[in-house]
Formats: sequence, C-alpha cells, structure tokens
Amino acid sequence: MRATLMYGPGDVRVENVPDARIVAPTDAVVRVTLACVCGSDLHPYHSMDPSGEGAPMGHEFLGVVEETGSEVRGLKRGDFVVSPFAYSDNTCPICRDGFHTACPRGGWYGAGGVGGAQAEAVRVPQADGTLVKLPDDVDPALLPSLLTLSDVYLTGYHAAHMGRVGPGRTVTVIGDGAVGLSAVLAARRMGAGTPDAEGRGRIILMGRHKVRTDLGLEWGATDVVAERGAEGVAKVMELTGGEGSHVVLEAVGLMPAYEQAYGIVRPGGVISRVGVPQYEEAPVGFGSLFGKNAGLTGGPAPVRAYIEQAIPDVLEGRIDPGKVFDAEVGLDQVADAYRLMDTRANLKVLVRP
Amino acid sequence: MRATLMYGPGDVRVENVPDARIVAPTDAVVRVTLACVCGSDLHPYHSMDPSGEGAPMGHEFLGVVEETGSEVRGLKRGDFVVSPFAYSDNTCPICRDGFHTACPRGGWYGAGGVGGAQAEAVRVPQADGTLVKLPDDVDPALLPSLLTLSDVYLTGYHAAHMGRVGPGRTVTVIGDGAVGLSAVLAARRMGAGTPDAEGRGRIILMGRHKVRTDLGLEWGATDVVAERGAEGVAKVMELTGGEGSHVVLEAVGLMPAYEQAYGIVRPGGVISRVGVPQYEEAPVGFGSLFGKNAGLTGGPAPVRAYIEQAIPDVLEGRIDPGKVFDAEVGLDQVADAYRLMDTRANLKVLVRP
Repeated sequence: MRATLMYGPGDVRVENVPDARIVAPTDAVVRVTLACVCGSDLHPYHSMDPSGEGAPMGHEFLGVVEETGSEVRGLKRGDFVVSPFAYSDNTCPICRDGFHTACPRGGWYGAGGVGGAQAEAVRVPQADGTLVKLPDDVDPALLPSLLTLSDVYLTGYHAAHMGRVGPGRTVTVIGDGAVGLSAVLAARRMGAGTPDAEGRGRIILMGRHKVRTDLGLEWGATDVVAERGAEGVAKVMELTGGEGSHVVLEAVGLMPAYEQAYGIVRPGGVISRVGVPQYEEAPVGFGSLFGKNAGLTGGPAPVRAYIEQAIPDVLEGRIDPGKVFDAEVGLDQVADAYRLMDTRANLKVLVRP
Repeated sequence: MRATLMYGPGDVRVENVPDARIVAPTDAVVRVTLACVCGSDLHPYHSMDPSGEGAPMGHEFLGVVEETGSEVRGLKRGDFVVSPFAYSDNTCPICRDGFHTACPRGGWYGAGGVGGAQAEAVRVPQADGTLVKLPDDVDPALLPSLLTLSDVYLTGYHAAHMGRVGPGRTVTVIGDGAVGLSAVLAARRMGAGTPDAEGRGRIILMGRHKVRTDLGLEWGATDVVAERGAEGVAKVMELTGGEGSHVVLEAVGLMPAYEQAYGIVRPGGVISRVGVPQYEEAPVGFGSLFGKNAGLTGGPAPVRAYIEQAIPDVLEGRIDPGKVFDAEVGLDQVADAYRLMDTRANLKVLVRP
C-alpha cells in the first residue's frame, strides 16, 4: 500500500510499504477515506533527526473498517469511523477520568510499530476503545468537519474545556492557526463571546493573518489583536480594562506565546495550552504565574472524551469546523500539502487517498 | 513603640520605632494582641540583602482597633479583629473574584511604608476591606486557632481549594511544615481522606519529622511517606496503584518539592502550590506537566476570601488549626522564635506583645 514517510526536515515521500494488517487481537485495519496534515506535523518537518527508515506520518482520519481482530466486539467490516489522533482502551481509570491520551494501553499513530494515517490504510490498536462509528449516510459536505473531530477542532475544544470557558469569562486565544481558530469556535460554543455590561466575556484572537482572523471573527471572536510581545500584551490589557483575560488559550507552543500568555492572564485566571511546547522549562515563579495565582493547564487533547458529543453538533449544523481546510491533495501529492502549510499559503490541507 | 526589624540573614532585632499612626483616611491602627513567625519569614532570615534600615517583620495578627481614619465605616475603636496577611479593598473586580492578594489597592505588611505585625501596633491600609471582626468574648484557648486564619491555615486551605480537593480525590501534601499540615486539615475538611474501595481518596503526607507527621495523621492524613526524591515518588505511585495523585499540594517552595510534585501527579491531575517558589523557571513541557495534562495552580493565598466561613469552623470546634503553635515568646524574645523555627526545634512560634 502507499503511505507517507518523513526522512528528515522538508523530506516527505509517499512510498510503497507492507499492507496494514492485524497484529494484536484488539486491532482493526481501517481503509482511510479522508486524512490531513496537522500543524504538529510541521515540527518534525522543521527539525527531525534524519532517519534512514523514515517516520510514518499522519494521525487524523475518517475511514472504513476493513478487518477486525478476534477480540474486537463493537466494530465490523464496513463500519464508517472517525479516529482520535491517539488510541486508547477507553475503559481504564485514566480514560474514565477523560484523559485518554495518557491511557496506559494507549499510544500514538506513527510510533511503536503503528503506521500513520496519511496512507491508504492504517492499523488501529485498541480498536473498540479508539474508533467511533459515524452514520453511513453522512452528507459528503460534512466530512471535513467530521475529520476535525480526530484532532484539530477537539484540540481547540480541549483547551477551552480545561480553561473552564463559559459565559462572562474573557477568553484570549493566542495563535490563528487551525487549532487557535478551533479554540475560538469552541469558546463560542461554550458561551463566551457575548460581552457583559463591563466588557467581560470577550473572545480576543491574537493573530495577524487576515484570512485566518476573518474566519475567527466569523466563528465568534469579538476582537482581533495583531500586535505581538509587549505591544500585544498592552493591547489585551487595554481591551480588558487593565484586568487581563480570565482564560488564555495558547495554541502555538513556542516560548514567545507562553510569555504573552502569562503577561495577559488575569489574577486567578488560567493559561490552557494545547500547542505542543517546543520548550521544557518556562517561568512559573512569583514574577510570572505564582504572584497572581495564575494557573497552567492543558496537554495532548483526549479527543476521544469529546467525540460523541461533538458529532451531533456537526451533523445538525451547530458548528462548521471543517472550514479550517482550504486545500485538498491526493495521497501522492502529500509533500505539496506540507509545503503549502509550511509556507502558510494554506491553513490546513485535506489528503484524500 | 517596640517592633521587629530584620537587618540581614540571622539578624533580627526588636527596637523602638515611631508609633503606628493613621496616614490615609482608609487606614486603621490596630494594637496587636497576638502575632507569630511565618515559615516565609525564614526566607529573608536565610538570604536577605543586608539592610541599613532594617525590614519590618510579621504579617499575621489578632488585635484591637485603636484608631480609624475618617473614611473607615465598618470598624470602630475597641473592635477585636483578625487581619489577613495582605491588605485589600475587598470591593474591586479582582477581590470580588476571590483573589484579594492581587487587589490593585492592596499590598503587603512590612513593605511600602506599612509596618510589620511582630510589633506592639500596626497600621492597616484599606481597613474596611481588610480586617474581619471577631466576637469580643472568644474563649482565649481559641485565639491561636483564630490567628491561623491570618495566614497558615487558610494558606493550606487555599492550596486545597485551588486543587479542587473533594471526596474520592487522592491528595498528596508535600511538606510537613505548618502550611503542609494545615493543607492536610483543610483537605480533610473538604471531604478527602476517606478512601473508596479502590483506594482513591487517600491523604498522603510527605514528611519525615515524626512529631509533625503525627499531627498530620491526627488531622486526617491516611498515609505518611518519609522518602524523598525518586524513592518518594515510587512510594506514592505504589500507594496509588500506579495512577498517581489527583491533587498534589506543594507547601515547600523549593525545586526538589516541585520535581516530586510532577513525578506523582496523576494524568489530568493538578499541582497546587502555596510554598513561595524560590525559583522562577521550572519544567512544564511534555516531559513534566504537558504530556500528562497535569495542571499547575496556586499562589499567595487570598485568605480574606475564606476568613468569614472559617471563623465558625474554629469557634464551633470543627477544626483546631492552632495546634501548629508549639511555643510562645514575648515580643522582646522574637529573635529566639526565629532561631527555634529555623533549627526546627519548633514548628511555629506565637509572639505575644
């Protein structure tokens, strides 16, 4: 079968690899209907150590179950499914708490002998716990939005959920990438974005790419701040009457975004991160978080916890997160998709095997 | 009047200073009935830059209002009061949110021209917002417990509150100082400490001073872990069935305690800090907090937010936080109190002017 491998920075190839097949009795093999490239795929695209074997890429997909292992109970050949970007058993105490990305039996696509989803097919470990069935007769126009439940929309949702967004809480989203815009949409869905008499409850989007921030405004942002660094902080403080933002959703993962976040968070507020941190150490002491009782939360989104409730939101038209996709390629053109996203020519690119 | 000044590491003196007096119309002057030395007073005692003038010390006190400024409405001469360790207006949006230690009109005793409480009297800025009246006829045996509402008990309470302690949540307290023990008492008061069938809901106290950990056990700890570092982490993981602790209350403020905290926090759990961090940067990336969706919260406790509800808990005997005091000195012996606490001969020392 054809699958995407990354060999080093900027070096993405589609090659013939052995067919995906059942390895453990809890596995399923899924033929991929629709996949895409993730902002997080650009991190290795910039800086991975060159690999002789190539790293399998892709972790977001819709597809059709082709084969199931002997212990799989809830799925059968022909089921149309969406997969979270991480697999998990959905039964252990950690999953029951809603933190599936830390499931002791879970793991990541493209690692540990599991293939990637930018491919014709993929092996899904812990298939019963991982895959969620979709109706067979979905309007094809809704497929991109359903694909965002694999990762991007529900990663934005996770940021807002962990930050306890709600009516009357001022929310600032740092980053106008697909996750940042999804966080705006999720914050609006949770009731932010209708400022009260004192101006609290705004959704402020920090970003400078007009096409993207326009989508943010369409999705519920009340203000756009294009400035960065100290100027950006000053602008948000001005918009919040000097109080700062109750919730800061940090969807970038770089240190300047973190610094911006603790600069604008209100005393007692919270910074919720879903951009994978490209740093390990960061300021957390009296001068950054502690002094103002600011909290820090977030991590890899356990999207499995949120998929079932999000499906009707998509099917019934309450949200349209698929608008983050602004281009589509075939599998053999996946290297183009990386290039288009890396140069910011496109926001997020569909891959149709 | 007599007041305590610190001139440098280990150099605490009681000297004659000008009498406390009204400066702003929102001030009160309070004659101190009972004060004490705080664990945080030991930080400058170890490492302050030598000062020619001396730094006024003390921020926990009960006392009697002696004089009020022209704009003070809710207090009068003769009122018996308890003061939070920080003053605040109790009316601004930040105070209304419950984060009085970040009040824009607030501040700290012993700084900015405001004296300390290890003294015969003290000026209280924002007196209406800061001071809380106590009954005149309080049983003198309860005064030490009421004094803990200035800081130590409610700082432990703040840690537990910010960590969202509750029934069924496993709580680990790092540190067997007066704040750590108070955090145990507060966690018990919030319903932790009754393990369920799967062992969740324990209160694990990490400390190695038997007299102190015995008080922790009396106050509701279900387990004591004397080991530190990797051994301590392994012990807590064993006690929690390999899952880790839902809530970690970090009452030390040093990096080894922080490292222990992220080693034992459960995926999706939270580290709540009230030990003033003696560091600014710390690990927060994929390998520490982010990877397991662990949160970080806490800061200087806005005890003003909690005093009113804690007073009946003390007066009606539901909690006895005054047990942290195991010695008492007169004001002129306050240097002894510092020494006794610094050498760990005593846990916390009362100062009776």
